[in-house]
Amino acid sequence: MQATAELQLIPIGSGVSVRQEIERVLEILKKYDFVLEPHAAGTNIEGRLPDILDAVKQVHETLHAEGSVRLLSYLKLETRTDKPPTLAGKRL
Amino acid sequence: MQATAELQLIPIGSGVSVRQEIERVLEILKKYDFVLEPHAAGTNIEGRLPDILDAVKQVHETLHAEGSVRLLSYLKLETRTDKPPTLAGKRL
Amino acid sequence: MQATAELQLIPIGSGVSVRQEIERVLEILKKYDFVLEPHAAGTNIEGRLPDILDAVKQVHETLHAEGSVRLLSYLKLETRTDKPPTLAGKRL
Amino acid sequence: MQATAELQLIPIGSGVSVRQEIERVLEILKKYDFVLEPHAAGTNIEGRLPDILDAVKQVHETLHAEGSVRLLSYLKLETRTDKPPTLAGKRL
Repeated sequence: MQATAELQLIPIGSGVSVRQEIERVLEILKKYDFVLEPHAAGTNIEGRLPDILDAVKQVHETLHAEGSVRLLSYLKLETRTDKPPTLAGKRL
Repeated sequence: MQATAELQLIPIGSGVSVRQEIERVLEILKKYDFVLEPHAAGTNIEGRLPDILDAVKQVHETLHAEGSVRLLSYLKLETRTDKPPTLAGKRL
Repeated sequence: MQATAELQLIPIGSGVSVRQEIERVLEILKKYDFVLEPHAAGTNIEGRLPDILDAVKQVHETLHAEGSVRLLSYLKLETRTDKPPTLAGKRL
Repeated sequence: MQATAELQLIPIGSGVSVRQEIERVLEILKKYDFVLEPHAAGTNIEGRLPDILDAVKQVHETLHAEGSVRLLSYLKLETRTDKPPTLAGKRL
């Protein structure tokens, strides 16, 4: 099943700047067969539902392995059966 | 890896009342080994990270199989390495 | 106009524990004529729409005045015209 | 106080397509002195905190006045005191 999503990761307790962790998230997402649109409040993702959920797991596990103590992620996930969900189809 | 989460499911285009779908989500979540706290803006979940992500997939797949055309879900996910994340530990 | 909401505040860069700031948010919310239900992923709120939005502003302004450098808040907001929105009416 | 935000509006019960309401939200936001970046999961906003909160109120009130029965909005809001928050500054 195909899906679109938005993923935002917030590291807690790692300082006021979180840019390094956000860049790492994007590197991890790029290993998947996704259409990616990074923006100021997260990264929009188009891909297979199980891949998106696996990527969320990889993000948490990788950043913890690299030293992050506390991680919050915010995922918006959309699926539909009337037509294939795409990021392009959701643009105005 | 243990995690806490909040899952809110919004069916689009199925009428103003979405109670039936929300009850179905809770039934699906109850099949897992989770601590569950349903509230007015979603259901809080404590459990294993891969189980939580699998449950999100099951919710989308099951509700589509039962007739929902368009589904949005909002997931807040938290993990930490300094102590086990629990719903009880996050209460004031 | 009446509304229901969920507010979650995340202080960035203030350490791994954010309990002090979360308790402060609840103190601020209690000054309004709200029905409040704190839970593990935020606080559910029932009240007048302009009051809820004013409270969000007060939370950001107060916590910055008390030393927080960077604040993220996540607000879910719901209004409806077919019946008064209540937290009680959204429970399963 | 300056802020950055992401606003996503979901009309419930108005059919599978919600494009008309989403376009209306953007029209309302354009009346304010905002930097706006619409994307597939909402619209990113840079502006004054009270203006952003006022715009959220206007969106709910206007769409209800135009016939929407049930409206959900998801707002991510960020403020900081160490430097002016901008959408440009949050891009990778």
